[in-house]
Amino acid sequence: MALVDVVLGVDIGGTNTVFGYVDKEGKCLHEASMLTNGDEPAELFFERFYAAESAIFEGLKHRCRVLGIGIGAPNANYYCGTIEQPPNLKWGFVNVVQEMKKYYDVPVALTNDANAAAIGEMVFGAAKGMKNFIVITLGTGLGSGIVANGQIVYGADGFAGEIGHTTYDPAGRDCGCGRKGCLEAYASATGIRRTVCELLALRTGASELRAVSLNDLTAKMISEAARRGDTIALEAFEMTGEILGLKLADSVAHTSPEAIILFGGLAAAGDLLFIPTQRSLEKHLFPIFRNKVKLLPSGLPLGNAAVLGSSALMWNELRK
Amino acid sequence: MALVDVVLGVDIGGTNTVFGYVDKEGKCLHEASMLTNGDEPAELFFERFYAAESAIFEGLKHRCRVLGIGIGAPNANYYCGTIEQPPNLKWGFVNVVQEMKKYYDVPVALTNDANAAAIGEMVFGAAKGMKNFIVITLGTGLGSGIVANGQIVYGADGFAGEIGHTTYDPAGRDCGCGRKGCLEAYASATGIRRTVCELLALRTGASELRAVSLNDLTAKMISEAARRGDTIALEAFEMTGEILGLKLADSVAHTSPEAIILFGGLAAAGDLLFIPTQRSLEKHLFPIFRNKVKLLPSGLPLGNAAVLGSSALMWNELRK
Repeated sequence: MALVDVVLGVDIGGTNTVFGYVDKEGKCLHEASMLTNGDEPAELFFERFYAAESAIFEGLKHRCRVLGIGIGAPNANYYCGTIEQPPNLKWGFVNVVQEMKKYYDVPVALTNDANAAAIGEMVFGAAKGMKNFIVITLGTGLGSGIVANGQIVYGADGFAGEIGHTTYDPAGRDCGCGRKGCLEAYASATGIRRTVCELLALRTGASELRAVSLNDLTAKMISEAARRGDTIALEAFEMTGEILGLKLADSVAHTSPEAIILFGGLAAAGDLLFIPTQRSLEKHLFPIFRNKVKLLPSGLPLGNAAVLGSSALMWNELRK
Repeated sequence: MALVDVVLGVDIGGTNTVFGYVDKEGKCLHEASMLTNGDEPAELFFERFYAAESAIFEGLKHRCRVLGIGIGAPNANYYCGTIEQPPNLKWGFVNVVQEMKKYYDVPVALTNDANAAAIGEMVFGAAKGMKNFIVITLGTGLGSGIVANGQIVYGADGFAGEIGHTTYDPAGRDCGCGRKGCLEAYASATGIRRTVCELLALRTGASELRAVSLNDLTAKMISEAARRGDTIALEAFEMTGEILGLKLADSVAHTSPEAIILFGGLAAAGDLLFIPTQRSLEKHLFPIFRNKVKLLPSGLPLGNAAVLGSSALMWNELRK
């Protein structure tokens, strides 16, 4: 039987690293995960990764052939193949491509997780055939990948696409980056929790969320409360959509995308988030852009999204 | 003697249309202008243009050969070759490339004036050799041309690069576009006049600008007053730079440009504008972008800038 050509897609996360073997149609033949152990030196991680991956591949080598490796990771730089001071990983500055090349002799490419999501949508997901679109990843923070003229916008230094750190309110909430009022401090899983907290202080109405500490509160609890009609939870989604739509209108004014794709945990809230975001986006768009920009959910299967995105990076390189 | 290869660069403005013959080094062999007469039907304009241009070319045809025509115009769409509802011109919807093709059998390309400025900087000016930069044109309004991966970002519909219509303050000044608080209502020749007006109401200090009506006030008068130490004029430049720097930090978060080039009338104020803009930009940048982005004046000679930009569009096409 002929071997199937696959790409090894790797998503290095703060807690877990997930990897899988993805064919050119976006079918994931096998997926596995391991602890990242971000406290250990990076060299140890790559040693453990090779051991874990080889063991898995042993059972696959009669079926497929790995053409290349695509990696998504926080603070990753596509140009240099490096990760620089990733949050949650005590690795400092690591040349990931070089480390991987010690174990593998296929092409290796690296990009940040939001850009990997964008390439994943372009190759396998909701942005198939699009040349101009933006992916917004709504997780703990707000990441973004911008595609213009069919290419990821990496910018002069490889770090373009930080829409989460555009300013919503220069006198607003503290952001983890040291600035004030960043979009991500409002529109993210963390942001909506802070919004609930603010609304609980502002409003006097009953809310089941009054019984939950900020530490215990999750975005999922807020969307469940909203579905039960909790007014604070509903207002939190309205406010999140209003702010996200306002700032996305700025993004449209920059690159005029055909679509904006909302990806990640908070996007799973569906209409609760999409309806107010779309309303606010249309309201704030410069007139020539109105009724043109689609607001779409991710087209990648939730379980494999990160691995599909990372593998799409390499499939995209191999097609060049 | 061998003929010099040139491109005919045309800048269609609300009042005047300027055209010139530019060689591949950016030398303008001859420049001329005519009234646009935007009240007349567009067909008449193209007839008059051909007559005026042919008359000039009669004197040049022994020296040069026109390889193509590049045109910059308001509300122009590169993809379609059209102008759509240009302000100050009662032309409605015009297919400019088609109209020109009635008279000329060389390649014709059209883009909006800010994109023409950006290509001009890339081919002949301050952005030579750069693959990622932004040009901001500060005239009556605020236009922008964004270059990423060495290409103008046109977006899905050809209208990308409207940084002037990103929102500075959703509850702020009325903008000509029908929205509120657009950057261009603050950072443009018109914007700084409105800022002076606001400051004259807020402050009690003496200012020579108290003697001037808003109708008579020009950006040039404000910069001249600032150079004489007028505190209202100086504060108006500080405020303009503060707002422009804040919003340019958002633009950097999108495309991470190597440089931002300030172009046009208000940029001629020099340090009065550049110093507060640079200070505000650095203050508001996401940390990884700090101390990386150059803020530069245009590298095109002031008199020929528009024609050089338009011709650069076609030189860029011919090199593809």
